[in-house]
Amino acid sequence: MENSQLPRVGRYDFQIEPFHCDFTNRLFPGHLGNGMLNAADYHSTERGYGVAELNVSHKTWVLSRFAIEILEMPFAYDKVAVKTWVEAAKKFFTSRNFTVTSPDGQKAYAYGKSIWAMIDTNTRQPTDILSIKNGIILNYIESEESCPIVAPSRVVIGHDMPFARKVDTHYNDVDINGHVNSVRYIDHILDLFSLVYYRTHQLRRIDIAYIAEAHAGDQLLLFKKEVEADEFVVRIVREEDKEIEIVRCKVKFVKD
Amino acid sequence: MENSQLPRVGRYDFQIEPFHCDFTNRLFPGHLGNGMLNAADYHSTERGYGVAELNVSHKTWVLSRFAIEILEMPFAYDKVAVKTWVEAAKKFFTSRNFTVTSPDGQKAYAYGKSIWAMIDTNTRQPTDILSIKNGIILNYIESEESCPIVAPSRVVIGHDMPFARKVDTHYNDVDINGHVNSVRYIDHILDLFSLVYYRTHQLRRIDIAYIAEAHAGDQLLLFKKEVEADEFVVRIVREEDKEIEIVRCKVKFVKD
Repeated sequence: MENSQLPRVGRYDFQIEPFHCDFTNRLFPGHLGNGMLNAADYHSTERGYGVAELNVSHKTWVLSRFAIEILEMPFAYDKVAVKTWVEAAKKFFTSRNFTVTSPDGQKAYAYGKSIWAMIDTNTRQPTDILSIKNGIILNYIESEESCPIVAPSRVVIGHDMPFARKVDTHYNDVDINGHVNSVRYIDHILDLFSLVYYRTHQLRRIDIAYIAEAHAGDQLLLFKKEVEADEFVVRIVREEDKEIEIVRCKVKFVKD
Repeated sequence: MENSQLPRVGRYDFQIEPFHCDFTNRLFPGHLGNGMLNAADYHSTERGYGVAELNVSHKTWVLSRFAIEILEMPFAYDKVAVKTWVEAAKKFFTSRNFTVTSPDGQKAYAYGKSIWAMIDTNTRQPTDILSIKNGIILNYIESEESCPIVAPSRVVIGHDMPFARKVDTHYNDVDINGHVNSVRYIDHILDLFSLVYYRTHQLRRIDIAYIAEAHAGDQLLLFKKEVEADEFVVRIVREEDKEIEIVRCKVKFVKD
């Protein structure tokens, strides 16, 4: 599927599906994240370093950090263009940016920044990104395109986090790698806030750090604390081994 | 958005998104159902009797029964064509069919049949479908197109159903009407089966009857019983009022 003539920036157009929208008729943030990750998958696959290609040599991409900032959430039937490109690539990490705009580029809906590692699927250890096809990813580094949000935060969290909810994981939580899907964590985190809260608040930004993996059947414990007005940190651990953090997250809402 | 020149059968092409696929790389059944319901929404909207149009006169469509039969679930990146049309319309019910095939129509992935009512959003009572724009829906009845599966079952259920799981409902469960989304019930039902079971079984058919509404924050109790080999019935009630059935469902799996 590789094509060396492709531009560095990939663009994928979507229509916002009514059944992907929340009770305010705006796109669910999880589906926005999904749209970005699907674009990342298409972009890397078309350029010869997608997951299917990597699997042949027992490697895969792993999302390490993800930040989404929402200026204005699109509504049902809106058409959007998702652009994505690789901003930088080093031995063990690569950063990929996203913009979500109206098709003519005039209205900015959201931006995203992400950091990815590559692992060996046998050893689960990090592996050299630049070893893939002689550093093919370096042919596609784009440093001009604008993505005007700050990089994904490491998410600093104290230890006095109140317990919020226990979540069982099931068939629908798990992706092709057998792990709980990156976006499902976002859904579970956003489900910590009530409909009453969503009636007067909109998600402005989410920073999520994926630290360890969880599998279907794992019971997740979510701890949540408000650190500033309408700004929350969330920690997710497995019930079985509470010392190992799975996810750390910060979410910031704005009043509607 | 109405256009009287449109054909009776609507066709909508989709690509199967990798992040909509399960651990076997096949489309999640919930996303298949979502694709059908989105097609239904586009089809009815384009022809002048969609939800947005109905809302103006305080009416809305309510899905009453839904059956999906899967011959072969598409994989990530497969392109599919979803066709949908109204098979019949009476005063209080209309039936709508779906086919999901490869774009050239040669490979059948899945079929769907659904029954819808229209309600007045103030009184929550059924309202006359044929009163909408002088029975506009009758201009689009299609009786030739083939959808070779049996109609959605009423789903007969005994009273000795073992309790399976309690599900809390949240922000991500709720649609524009403030009710638990039709497809989220399918997700919750399919989450009653373990990954071990899905390793050797595939969903063949689901019949779901939507009887009453649930709202965000409601706690749902799911009861499940195997009635024949790999065939299960599921009953969903609200914890608050266990006498009122919300959903009755039958799911049939086949060995992989």
